Amino acid sequence: MANSLNIIVYSGTVDKLIPVGVLTQTAANMEMRVRLFVTGWALLAFKKDGYKDFNRMPNEFSDLVPALMEGMAKTKTPSWYEMVKTAKEMGDVKIHACSLMTGVMGLKKEDLDPIVDDIVGAASFMQEVQGEQVIFI
Amino acid sequence: MANSLNIIVYSGTVDKLIPVGVLTQTAANMEMRVRLFVTGWALLAFKKDGYKDFNRMPNEFSDLVPALMEGMAKTKTPSWYEMVKTAKEMGDVKIHACSLMTGVMGLKKEDLDPIVDDIVGAASFMQEVQGEQVIFI
Amino acid sequence: MANSLNIIVYSGTVDKLIPVGVLTQTAANMEMRVRLFVTGWALLAFKKDGYKDFNRMPNEFSDLVPALMEGMAKTKTPSWYEMVKTAKEMGDVKIHACSLMTGVMGLKKEDLDPIVDDIVGAASFMQEVQGEQVIFI
Repeated sequence: MANSLNIIVYSGTVDKLIPVGVLTQTAANMEMRVRLFVTGWALLAFKKDGYKDFNRMPNEFSDLVPALMEGMAKTKTPSWYEMVKTAKEMGDVKIHACSLMTGVMGLKKEDLDPIVDDIVGAASFMQEVQGEQVIFI
Repeated sequence: MANSLNIIVYSGTVDKLIPVGVLTQTAANMEMRVRLFVTGWALLAFKKDGYKDFNRMPNEFSDLVPALMEGMAKTKTPSWYEMVKTAKEMGDVKIHACSLMTGVMGLKKEDLDPIVDDIVGAASFMQEVQGEQVIFI
Repeated sequence: MANSLNIIVYSGTVDKLIPVGVLTQTAANMEMRVRLFVTGWALLAFKKDGYKDFNRMPNEFSDLVPALMEGMAKTKTPSWYEMVKTAKEMGDVKIHACSLMTGVMGLKKEDLDPIVDDIVGAASFMQEVQGEQVIFI
């Protein structure tokens, strides 16, 4: 993944935000540059205080969610939000919200969580990550 | 993403086709080469006239789909199909359908939308995108 | 995809394991190095004998699953498990299970299918695939 990790954060169920948190924190630990481009349903989790009550999970695995949550508590695994926040404090991590989807959802910068740095277009993001690794989650 | 963008289009719910459209059109605008390898459930959306009545959405977010559609209409955001079609008209964009999955689904070239260029195997696609950026959606 | 293919295997519904099998086998055929990092719900499919009874499918497409299975049988398409196993026998394919998620799920090495090589952390995996292609499925 060269010296950068770039993630298009789309899916938005909380289970898929866990690997976003883990990969972001791991990459920041390794002193890699990290850029998240948040769009689609995932924007809802990045609304101001969104992480507090956003808890959609995939229907296919809903019977297993209680055990997952219990396992995360028992192993003291931080939430995806804490992992991303910590990563921002310690490394070169920027979080962009997608301008097209914030427009579609009627969201402005002030509606988003303070961990979001700015609202940018897909073209800006693709320019920024030119020639680098990009993962879609 | 170097000078090419390659997407394995698999998931097939319409919400996930939106970023396929946005990334394809953005990359074509930036004069990048774009290759889509359509497989799995997404093949259903690329059947002839499939885009017209294919409207499966993720169950987890079905309550939010009307607001999303309304937001897309209000902001005059084109459909994923229009975005991909426009991108094909203006740039170096090719759409391959996966030979294994078209076989499994009993689909022939003439069953697919005209925006699909050909039916190829995974090996051909991987050869074509060797050393380049690939995203799985 | 250079001479390596690296997949973060997360989603865990069986339909999404099919492209994992196809890409792994295709890449091994092309003499590429393949590394799978299995985490999230997908770990359940990699439990000992997990592939035998693990058959969760996305709710959005459940009406189409019987036709898909029938199509795979008719075209003699091997299961994802057979494809991954064959790929391991013929090429440089390694399967890592994620240490954080095995811990959260209370799984030990002996609980996992023998095709899993080891349990490693995200940092080790990211170190191993530095500068290479990574896909998230």
